[in-house]
Order: sequence, then structure tokens, then C-alpha cells
Amino acid sequence: MAADRVPELTSKALALLKADADKIYKLIDVQMENLTMPSCPLYEEVLDTQMFGLSRAIEFAVRLGVVEEATGREILDHLERKLATLHEMFDQDQKS
Amino acid sequence: MAADRVPELTSKALALLKADADKIYKLIDVQMENLTMPSCPLYEEVLDTQMFGLSRAIEFAVRLGVVEEATGREILDHLERKLATLHEMFDQDQKS
Repeated sequence: MAADRVPELTSKALALLKADADKIYKLIDVQMENLTMPSCPLYEEVLDTQMFGLSRAIEFAVRLGVVEEATGREILDHLERKLATLHEMFDQDQKS
Repeated sequence: MAADRVPELTSKALALLKADADKIYKLIDVQMENLTMPSCPLYEEVLDTQMFGLSRAIEFAVRLGVVEEATGREILDHLERKLATLHEMFDQDQKS
């Protein structure tokens, strides 16, 4: 442990968080693809839980000082926009 | 940012996580003290959410390499034992 130097830790932290965000991104993608299937549930709770977990990890990284607050915010904002698109698609699908 | 050196980051990480754990510990304490009040709800969901958030922050710290896995596990185990005690007290209170 602690063999990494600080600049390495900051890029490692960012890589870990981005990988986590990417997993959620893919979860949302799968949801979008399956919207046309009959009676496909929207895994809102699963997505919300994953988002909350990621936000806590990002918050910790920011407090630790290895990730900039703006960068952390950007990762979450990006996912939230994607999630909003999913909800719009879901609403339209329900209406049709 | 990144002005800290790695040994400072590891102690900072541990201090942050322990402070978070302490907040949950105090939440559980408040619950224990209020058990004797009539119709006092058990804020299980609140506690569960806090525990989950902390576990994700710890997991991230371990993956980043600034906290030992055993140390992270210890912080959570300690809280889980405290939570188990609360549940026992709650069950006994419900029976009486």
C-alpha cells in the first residue's frame, strides 16, 4: 500500500470513478434498449442506488483532495443527463 | 490540490472515513436512547443508506490503495455490531 505517488493517486482515483460511472452508463443504455419490450420494468431503484454509491465515492475523493470538485460534479452531471433522457424515453413509451 | 504527500493522504483518508463512521455511530446512539419513547420509528432506511454510502467510500479508498482492506472492514464490522445491538433492543422493546 501507498507505493503510488500523489500524482499517480489522482489519476488512479479518476480512473476508478470513471470506470464506475461507465458501468452505470451501460446500465442506463441497457434500460434504453429494453424500453420497447413489453412490461419491461424501469430499474429506477437500482440506478438510484448506484448513483448514490458513486456520488459518495466522488465526495470522498474530493474531500481527500485527489479529485477536483468540478471534475467530480461533471462525472455525476453527465450521468444525470443520461438518466433524464432515459426517463423522457420511458414517459413517451408509456404514452404511446 | 494534491499538496499532501501519500502518507498524509492515507491518514487523511482514514480520518475522513472514521469521522463518517462516527456520525452513523451517533445516529444509532440516538435511536437507542429514543427506543423507550412511544411509537418512535426505527430509522432503518436512513441507517442502511448511510451504511451503504460509507461502505462505498471505504471500498473506493481500498481500491485506491490509501486504506488497508482489513482496516476498512473493521470500521464497517464495528458499525454492524452496533446496529445489531440496536435491533436486539428494538425487538425486546416491541415484545414488552
